[in-house]
Amino acid sequence: MRAAYYKGQKHFSVSEGQEKAPRPTEAKIRVAYCGICGTDLHIYHGKMDARTGHNRITGHECSGEIVELGRDVTDFRVGDRVVVRPLASCGDCPACAAGHSHICHNLNFMGVDSEGAFQEYWTVPAKLLHRVPEKISLKQAALAEPLAVACHDVRLGEVKAGEYVVVLGGGPIGLLVALVARERGARVLVSEINSYRLGLARELGLEAANPKEQDLVQLVKRESGTAGADVVFEVTGTEAGAELMTQLPKTRGRIVVVAIYSFRPTVDLFGFFWRELHVCGARVYEAEDFEESLRLLAEGLAADTLISGVHPLGDLQATFEHLEADPRAMKTLIDCRA
Amino acid sequence: MRAAYYKGQKHFSVSEGQEKAPRPTEAKIRVAYCGICGTDLHIYHGKMDARTGHNRITGHECSGEIVELGRDVTDFRVGDRVVVRPLASCGDCPACAAGHSHICHNLNFMGVDSEGAFQEYWTVPAKLLHRVPEKISLKQAALAEPLAVACHDVRLGEVKAGEYVVVLGGGPIGLLVALVARERGARVLVSEINSYRLGLARELGLEAANPKEQDLVQLVKRESGTAGADVVFEVTGTEAGAELMTQLPKTRGRIVVVAIYSFRPTVDLFGFFWRELHVCGARVYEAEDFEESLRLLAEGLAADTLISGVHPLGDLQATFEHLEADPRAMKTLIDCRA
Repeated sequence: MRAAYYKGQKHFSVSEGQEKAPRPTEAKIRVAYCGICGTDLHIYHGKMDARTGHNRITGHECSGEIVELGRDVTDFRVGDRVVVRPLASCGDCPACAAGHSHICHNLNFMGVDSEGAFQEYWTVPAKLLHRVPEKISLKQAALAEPLAVACHDVRLGEVKAGEYVVVLGGGPIGLLVALVARERGARVLVSEINSYRLGLARELGLEAANPKEQDLVQLVKRESGTAGADVVFEVTGTEAGAELMTQLPKTRGRIVVVAIYSFRPTVDLFGFFWRELHVCGARVYEAEDFEESLRLLAEGLAADTLISGVHPLGDLQATFEHLEADPRAMKTLIDCRA
Repeated sequence: MRAAYYKGQKHFSVSEGQEKAPRPTEAKIRVAYCGICGTDLHIYHGKMDARTGHNRITGHECSGEIVELGRDVTDFRVGDRVVVRPLASCGDCPACAAGHSHICHNLNFMGVDSEGAFQEYWTVPAKLLHRVPEKISLKQAALAEPLAVACHDVRLGEVKAGEYVVVLGGGPIGLLVALVARERGARVLVSEINSYRLGLARELGLEAANPKEQDLVQLVKRESGTAGADVVFEVTGTEAGAELMTQLPKTRGRIVVVAIYSFRPTVDLFGFFWRELHVCGARVYEAEDFEESLRLLAEGLAADTLISGVHPLGDLQATFEHLEADPRAMKTLIDCRA
C-alpha cells in the first residue's frame, strides 16, 4: 500500500508502506478521506519535528471503512463506515485519573506523536472509532474531527439559546464553532480579516465583520444594547485577538481560548478583574463531542461547505505547497484511495 | 465633627465636616474603626484623582454604631453595631439587570466615587448595612470588608475540601483568601517574597514559600503528586504572578484573578489551551460574602491577627506617610472616635 511519510523540511515522500494486521482490540481501516489542518501545516513547516521526527505518517482527520477486525472487537463489523478519534491516552496520569483523558499528560495524538492517516490502510484501537451515520458521505465524515473540536469548544463555552456569540477568526475551526453556536440557538458574529473567508461566513448565513474596517467593540456594544457579548471564542492566536477577546464580553461574560498561541501575548488582566470575566481553554475533544459532531452532520449542518479542495494522496506534496500560499484555502481533503 | 479630606498630592486635611441627617431610607453611623487598603494608598498617591477629585472623604472598610435612622428603616435600631457594604449600584445597567449589581457598570464605590468613612459620622443607605454579631468587637468588625473580598474570591474559585490551593501574594487580601480557603477544608500554600509577611503566614499556620528562593512550580508539583494545584489565586498584580498563575494549576485547574493590574502582563494563553485552565476575575463582594465574612469572624477566624496598627483619625496624614515605607504594614486601622 501507499503511505505518505513526512521527511522534514517541507517534504513528504509517498512510497510503499506496511499494512498492519489488527491486534485483538484493533481495527484496520481503509482510509477514504483525510483532511489537512493547521497542525499538519505546522508539521510541514518543521515546527513540530521534536514530536514527529523525520519519517512519520501524519494526518488525523480521516473517514474510512473497516476492512479487518481484531478478534476481541465485537461492536463493529467489517464494512462499517467509521471516523477515528485520534487520541490515545495513558490512563494513569492525574488528568486521566480526573476523567480528562483527552488532555492526558502523556497524550499520544495519533498522526503527530504516532502514525496517522495519510496512507491507504490505518490500523487503530477500535475504542477510538465512531460509526458514521448512513446519511453522511465519507467525504462529509472527514469533517467530523474538526467539527468535534468546535462541538467541544461550544460545549465548554456553555453557549445557550438567545446568547450573543462572537467568534474571532473565520478559518475552518472558527466557522465550525460559529455554525455549532448557531445550532445552539445563539446569534453569532464572525470577526475575520481575510475577505474570502468573510464572504464564506456570509454565504453560510453568519454575520461577519472585518475588525480592520469596523470598530468591533462598538459594533458588539451596539448590537447587544451596551451589554457586550455573552461568549467570545478566540480562534486567531494573534495579539489583536488576545486584545479583542477581553474587550468584547459582557460583565461575567465567557471567553474560550481555542487558538494555539505560539507566543505570549499581553493580556488585559485588569479587564478580567473589572468585569469578572470567565475564561477557559478548550483543546481537542472528548468522545461525546465526536458523537455530537456526527449527529450534527447527519442533521445537515453544512460543514462540507468548507471543503475547498480534494486531492489524491500521490499529490500530497503539491497540495501542501499550494496550501501555504492560497488565501482561499479552507478545508482540503486528501483522497487516500485515489 | 471631624472628617479627613483627601486634598491631592499625598495630602489629607483633617478638619470640620458636616454631619448629615439620614434621609428616609438611610442610617447615620458613628464610625468606630476604618481600615486602610491598597485602594486608599492608590488614592493617596494621586492615581485615582479622576475618580476622587481633591476634596473627598475617603475610607471604605468601617465598623460603627447606628446613631440615627431614617423614618422608613425598620430592620435596624439605634445602637446596632454595623458594618457598611460600600457599593451603591445603579439598578439599570446590563450588569445590574443580570444580577451582578456589585460590578454595576455605573458603580459608586463609596469612599472612592463618593463620600467615605474617614470621618466621625457617616450617613449611608440602610440597605448596605450588615449587623455585627455579638461575639465580634468593632475592631474585628473593621476586617469584615477585606474578609468579604476574600470570601467572594474563594466562592468564585469554588474551593472545595481537600483541594490544594496556592495563593500568590501574602498581603492582607492574600492572607485572608488563604484563611478562608483553609476554612473550606483546602490545603493552602502562600507564595510571598516579603520575609515579614512570610513569617506572618506561618504564624497563622499556613504553608508559605518564597518563590525567589524556591522553585514554586517544582514544589507544587511535588506536593500534589505531579498534578498541580486545584486553584491558584493571583493576588500580586505582577508579571511574575501572571507567569506563575498559569504554571501552577493542574489540568482543568482554576485561576482567580484578584489583583488589580496596573499594566498588561504577558500571559501564557497556550497554557490555558493546553491544560484547559479556567480563569475568572473576582472583584469586591456581594451581600452574601459580607454575611459569610461576619459569620467567619464570629466563629473565630483570626483575621484580626493582620491588624498591624491602630491610629487616631487626627494622625491620618502621618499614618499614610508611615505606611508607604513600612514593610511590616499589614492592616492599619484608623480609630475615628479617637
